[in-house]
Parts: sequence; C-alpha cells; structure tokens
Amino acid sequence: MPAPKVTTAEFLDIVKVGLPQVADWDVEIESLEFGKGSVILPYQQKFLRPGGTISGPTMMALGDFALYMAVLSIVGPEPMAVTTSLNTNFLNFPTAGDIRAKVRVLKAGRRLVYGDVEIFALAGDPDLCVTHITGTYSVPAKTR
Amino acid sequence: MPAPKVTTAEFLDIVKVGLPQVADWDVEIESLEFGKGSVILPYQQKFLRPGGTISGPTMMALGDFALYMAVLSIVGPEPMAVTTSLNTNFLNFPTAGDIRAKVRVLKAGRRLVYGDVEIFALAGDPDLCVTHITGTYSVPAKTR
Amino acid sequence: MPAPKVTTAEFLDIVKVGLPQVADWDVEIESLEFGKGSVILPYQQKFLRPGGTISGPTMMALGDFALYMAVLSIVGPEPMAVTTSLNTNFLNFPTAGDIRAKVRVLKAGRRLVYGDVEIFALAGDPDLCVTHITGTYSVPAKTR
Amino acid sequence: MPAPKVTTAEFLDIVKVGLPQVADWDVEIESLEFGKGSVILPYQQKFLRPGGTISGPTMMALGDFALYMAVLSIVGPEPMAVTTSLNTNFLNFPTAGDIRAKVRVLKAGRRLVYGDVEIFALAGDPDLCVTHITGTYSVPAKTR
Repeated sequence: MPAPKVTTAEFLDIVKVGLPQVADWDVEIESLEFGKGSVILPYQQKFLRPGGTISGPTMMALGDFALYMAVLSIVGPEPMAVTTSLNTNFLNFPTAGDIRAKVRVLKAGRRLVYGDVEIFALAGDPDLCVTHITGTYSVPAKTR
Repeated sequence: MPAPKVTTAEFLDIVKVGLPQVADWDVEIESLEFGKGSVILPYQQKFLRPGGTISGPTMMALGDFALYMAVLSIVGPEPMAVTTSLNTNFLNFPTAGDIRAKVRVLKAGRRLVYGDVEIFALAGDPDLCVTHITGTYSVPAKTR
Repeated sequence: MPAPKVTTAEFLDIVKVGLPQVADWDVEIESLEFGKGSVILPYQQKFLRPGGTISGPTMMALGDFALYMAVLSIVGPEPMAVTTSLNTNFLNFPTAGDIRAKVRVLKAGRRLVYGDVEIFALAGDPDLCVTHITGTYSVPAKTR
Repeated sequence: MPAPKVTTAEFLDIVKVGLPQVADWDVEIESLEFGKGSVILPYQQKFLRPGGTISGPTMMALGDFALYMAVLSIVGPEPMAVTTSLNTNFLNFPTAGDIRAKVRVLKAGRRLVYGDVEIFALAGDPDLCVTHITGTYSVPAKTR
C-alpha cells in the first residue's frame, strides 16, 4: 500500500477553502491511509434535529468531507476534485453525541473516484451503521 | 387533482422546528399543489463555494426542503415524515444567484413517498438543470 | 434543437452487438430526438414474475437500453459508451402487458452523460410511473 | 449472532419461483449467515458482453439474488419481500470467468431492509471490486 498522497495538514488547509462550512466543525482525523480513513465529528448542539438526533445535512456534509479526504489521499492535494454524485441512506437515528465516519475508496480511475462512507454514533451502539453514503468524485485529468 | 393537504404557512411552521438550518434562509414558495411545487432560494453570500458557485450542501438541503413540502402536500402536516434516502447528482456548476427547485412526487405509497427535484440557477441558463435529486420519505403509518 | 446524432437503424445495429439480451426483444422506438426519446417493449410471457407483473431485471434492461439510445443521440454511434451507474426505484407493480420507457438526458458533459427514464405499463394506468431510473454513461474522450 | 432464518435449500426453492431467470444459472451459495453471505456465479458464455467482459444486467441480477438471500436470512422464507431500490455502480470491467458476490445487511428494520453487495471477478484480481450495489427490500408487515 503506498503512503497517502495528502497529509492531514494539507487536507485541512484545502478544506478551509473548499468546504468552509465543515472547516470550523473541528473534525478530528483519526486515521488517514492511501484510499481510506476515519474521522470524528465532535458533538455540537447545532447539529441536533428534533428528536434529539443528529441532522441529515450534518451527516451528508461529514460524509462528503471524509470521501474528499480519501480521494485526495490517492490523487494528492487537488482542490478541484468535485463531487459528482452523493447517495445517502439514512438507516438509524444517531444518538446525540460524537459521530465517526469511516471511508474507503472502491475504485480510483483516472477521472472518477468512487467510495463509500459508513457513519456511526459513538454515544449509541458504536458498531451500528446509522447512515451509509456512496459517492463519486471527478478529478481533473492533469492531476494524475 | 385534490387540493394540497398542507398550506404554505403550515409547512413553514413545521420547517421552523424540523429543518432549522433551512428555516432562516427565507426560501420563497412559488407554487404548491398536491404532490408538486416550486421554491426559490434567495442568494446569500454564505451559500457560495470557491469558484463563485453555490455549494453542494446548500443544494442538497434545498432539495430536501422541497421534497418534504411535496410529501406533506399529500400526507398532510406530519412532522415525523423522515428522509430515508437522498440521491444527488451534481450536473453543472450553478451561477451565483437565486436558485429554483422544482419538485414532483412520483409515488405516494402508504409508507413510502418517492419524488425527484430539479434545481436551476436563475442567474445562469434558467432552464439548465444544475442538480438532480431523487429521494424517499418514510411516513408514519398513522398519518394516512 | 439539433438532429439526433444516431439514427434508429444505427442504434439498433449497435444494440445487436452491445446489448444482445435486449436486441431480440423487438423493442420499438416510438420517438428519437436529440437527448430524448421513447421506446415500447412488446409483452412476452418470459418477462413476467410471480404476481403477474413485469420483472425488475426486465425493466432495468429496458431502462439501460433507452438511456443508451438517448446518450448516442448526443454523442453519435459510439459503441464504447458504457454505463457507470444505474439507480432504479421500483414504485408500482406494472400490469402485465406492453411497457413504455421515456428517457431524457439532463446533462451531456464531455465525458459523462446523465439522464433519467420513466417506465409506464400501458395495460394499467398508462400515466402512472411504475419504475424510475437515473443513470450515467461514460463516453470515450475521442468521440466528442 | 442468531442462525440464519432461511436455509440454503429453502432460499433456492423460493428463487425458483421468484427469480426464475437466475434460478437456472446454478449459482453456488458459498456461505450464508444471519444478514450476510457469499455466492458464486459459474461462468457461462451467455453472460459475456463485447470486450470479453461480464454484462451489467448479469451482475445486477446476481446482486439482487445475493441481497434477497441476505434479507431472507433475517426475515425468514418470505417470497413477498420485494426490491424497492437497487443502485449499481460499475467500477471495473470484470474478466470473463466466475464471479463472486459478497452481501451484508446494514439495516434490518421492520419494513425495510438495506444492504450492499460487492462483486469480484475471480479470473482477474479476485480482491478488486468490479461492481458495487446498494439496495433496499420492502418486507410485508406480517413477516416480522
């Protein structure tokens, strides 16, 4: 397995510009390898929706963040990688608290990178997938 | 075609509680019929992402808002309708400015309601679909 | 609107090689324009599944056929256009009988073409969408 | 982990009626546990498409078969479980030869069961996912 082609610091710099909404959420990168990784979103009350559960848009944004990180771990620090599709399935209501997103790339083509993200709520059953996301990024030709 | 089972005012009240992030975006409901409608998101600079285009999370949230409205137009003012899946395809970069979301329900079952949303950027080509969303809501059994 | 870049006859020739399973179904092309069209699958008993309804794989194959046709109407007779994703939502049970698929392209990029397909069962309510498909084709760079 | 609620023999009997197209493909069930399993499709020339690769419809049908099996392993021998959505991403061209589908259920609700399927081509790189499928089955209320 090659080393990841983006460092944690490089990725967080790119996110500050490219995903400003998420950039100030203080997402913690637990692990980052070539084509996979894990991140934790520390709980904030603003992520709640009625019923005491984490909102859908929060999880979609976190999933997109995690997928972006895994894509750049393969193609390098390329801000112009963009999401072309993001398919989200909301499976269980996440308990209020920190949430973890685990991402892996399943296909890294020259132009399209595809992966999935599993999201877990650490304050509930930490092994129960609450949301499952699949998505594709388009990568500029020059970056490979 | 029956009348919509939720009024604009009732829907906006539900959104204040259920989708607080969107509730303060001043989304304007252009039309609301039984199972379909159209909404406009007035431009704010905070919706931008680098490149001068509207961000993906903004469009996903708007699409979810529009689909929720169309679902309630069929099932009535039911706050506990929840998204079970939301599949987003980002097709073209939306020009900065107001965006319109047109929604229609394709299947209204007893428990699942499915529809799609087409999003247009009014400052660019107003007939060019920039984002296409399909989604399913789950409706509590008692509401039908 | 430009003329379609593939003729009905050219498309059916490509299908004979590229989609042999569907090629002998005698699908009838009702209309073919630039980026959209309509096809009819004449009923055969082998399409049935228990319950007297048309099977899911039959509808997925028909949808893929229709999308392929709409893609080639834009890029020309290019056999190497390939499906990269096909998302199918089964909405209502189709009554046994002929089925119609209406397709439109929503985005024709240089490398990716995205569209959707609505399927109707003519022996039932001919205006009730029984299956909704969205899909993306990847097109070789040289063809544009 | 409970025992699977359907046996291999019971499942194959249900498939004979419910998925007749796949029933005569001689799919071999490698493993079947509660909510997960693995199956192998022995190669036949009729599965090929031009380019010497396994066709998309073949893989979609196999994925649906595998997901059906995993659903019944949780809900028991219920022929009326039906697919409500099937989202397929074609990632790599599978080498002609046997293919394996590995399935797992990510959410088993009272009415909806969601899972994903990874498909591998054993004659190529047996660890390279060639196709990724996510799907939802709807289960009649009485069966749980």
